[in-house]
Amino acid sequence: MGQEIDEIPQVVERILADGEADASAVAKAVRSFRPRRVTVVARGTSDNAAVYARYLIETHLHLPVALAAPSVTTIYRARLAWHDTLVICVSQSGQSPDIVAVAAAARQGGALTVSITNDRSSPLAEVSQHTLLCHAGPERAVAATKTYVAELAVLAHLVARLVPRSALAHGLPAIPGALRMSVHRGDEWLSRATEALASTDHLLVVSRGFNLATALEVALKFKETGHIFAEGYSTADLLHGPIALAAPDVPLVAFRPHGRIGRTIDEALRSVHATGARTWLVRSEARPRRTISNEELRLSIALPEPLTPLVLVVPGQRLAEAVARRRGYDPDSPIGLTKVTRTF
Amino acid sequence: MGQEIDEIPQVVERILADGEADASAVAKAVRSFRPRRVTVVARGTSDNAAVYARYLIETHLHLPVALAAPSVTTIYRARLAWHDTLVICVSQSGQSPDIVAVAAAARQGGALTVSITNDRSSPLAEVSQHTLLCHAGPERAVAATKTYVAELAVLAHLVARLVPRSALAHGLPAIPGALRMSVHRGDEWLSRATEALASTDHLLVVSRGFNLATALEVALKFKETGHIFAEGYSTADLLHGPIALAAPDVPLVAFRPHGRIGRTIDEALRSVHATGARTWLVRSEARPRRTISNEELRLSIALPEPLTPLVLVVPGQRLAEAVARRRGYDPDSPIGLTKVTRTF
Repeated sequence: MGQEIDEIPQVVERILADGEADASAVAKAVRSFRPRRVTVVARGTSDNAAVYARYLIETHLHLPVALAAPSVTTIYRARLAWHDTLVICVSQSGQSPDIVAVAAAARQGGALTVSITNDRSSPLAEVSQHTLLCHAGPERAVAATKTYVAELAVLAHLVARLVPRSALAHGLPAIPGALRMSVHRGDEWLSRATEALASTDHLLVVSRGFNLATALEVALKFKETGHIFAEGYSTADLLHGPIALAAPDVPLVAFRPHGRIGRTIDEALRSVHATGARTWLVRSEARPRRTISNEELRLSIALPEPLTPLVLVVPGQRLAEAVARRRGYDPDSPIGLTKVTRTF
Repeated sequence: MGQEIDEIPQVVERILADGEADASAVAKAVRSFRPRRVTVVARGTSDNAAVYARYLIETHLHLPVALAAPSVTTIYRARLAWHDTLVICVSQSGQSPDIVAVAAAARQGGALTVSITNDRSSPLAEVSQHTLLCHAGPERAVAATKTYVAELAVLAHLVARLVPRSALAHGLPAIPGALRMSVHRGDEWLSRATEALASTDHLLVVSRGFNLATALEVALKFKETGHIFAEGYSTADLLHGPIALAAPDVPLVAFRPHGRIGRTIDEALRSVHATGARTWLVRSEARPRRTISNEELRLSIALPEPLTPLVLVVPGQRLAEAVARRRGYDPDSPIGLTKVTRTF
């Protein structure tokens, strides 16, 4: 798992270089299709990449994005009105039968189907009109890390080619550098956080906006590898109920990007601090104006906010791995999980 | 909280009787608007009603349903393409500024806006073109119970008037009777389950399809009132990672309706049982062919599967309340929560 986290900068580099022709071609196909809406189909880790896709597409393409409920197609056999729809299926393995079934139904119903997968010969790639590759090489650890960031990078790459004059498009080439700067930062913070979290059985993991995906994905890593009940939430949703879980013995991990959304996260964290919960904060600025938590890992991510999820997640992945090992688990082979999950 | 759960049958009765004119009028407005897609806007408990709305609308109206991310509008200030869209805003209080802001933006962008709220004079009702009332009377307990079922009932009522020949429409009048039959069933199961769950700090709560909303909502009640880390999942998503949390000391509560989806839930529960987790099952059939768990509460819900969430949730609400009291908490005034939450 740690080795695969280390590979992330070069995976993203490959996506931007080797994936350029495919991204431009798919962007062209999307432009000529003129979708009126977007549906993203995914499960597990890829479902968190789908959450990122929702913010990315809604803010940059201004099209409403739905995350698919596969059972509507596979169990309830409803024929949705798929025409006018860009359907993006995200699956590292491209194997899960329900994702493949939704892709097939959408294509038959007139959608433009694009799959994002690490395996060009997978059933998902075969059933989709277009495929964008993760270029991640074989993933051996059961808990996905490099393929998660790869999925985000492929999504950002595609959207950037659709909005070529955006800050997103201009920021793209800087991602590998930002990742290299960050991937080994914060060893001291990491060891203190590992110490503090190793003995906990519960955790809150929060962020908001583009980085809601980061919170959900890091919470999932804690569940899968550390067997910790880690609840991932947007700070806004947290205030609508789950903040009842906050307590002095429940640590909180927060991902705090720069920009306006960061300030709304700060406000929510103040409510959390009032409960006595201890906060471990990963933030995107090296020299923030104000300190929010007394345990801050300050990265220096010179990227537009929509690209920060590709970098902020990395310390979260490293922390989940370190905590799992410290708790005596093998994060490469979590109990009860297999690399490819088949659901119907 | 218990008193408000007891009121549920009469609240639903009022919705079907007093709400009939409004439901028919809004159905007429929806038909003449001819939406091509639907967006549901909600937070907290109402967000779980929104999950129900997604399955209900996709399977009955065949329109793709998106659950809104309010920050896209309130923080990132993106102007979404709202025309052609039916926007349903769900909020008991009708007060949260972010929900009101999305409703206003959608209406300005050409959407047909319908609010579902318990307060006809709320800001949300004022900003929406149409309002459907919850008819729930004042809700005093902070943890919403009767207004959750009321929101589901209003949604089912509206969709039934749009698909008048459906099993859904035919089943509608039977809901209050089914609720009266169930609301006080299972005292023995309830006290055994309360005993077993009172000492746990973690819980998995699962279902799938229409009743995914049930699992998410009951998990939220356990969090809010019992301060238990209760993770709500679809059984399909559970298998894609979070099943790593299943263990002999982690109880599982499952809601199992009849129909094909029920059989896929059974399959997932077999994987869970292999981990040694103890399952508390609420099922819709009085005489099922096969026993899935040795702790089954068998209701006898003579309703089509899409209406079972209105009834299956009730034992879950009662269980959460009983467990909270047993743990020494006051479920009517959970720590750190207020009746109306304002997020931006």
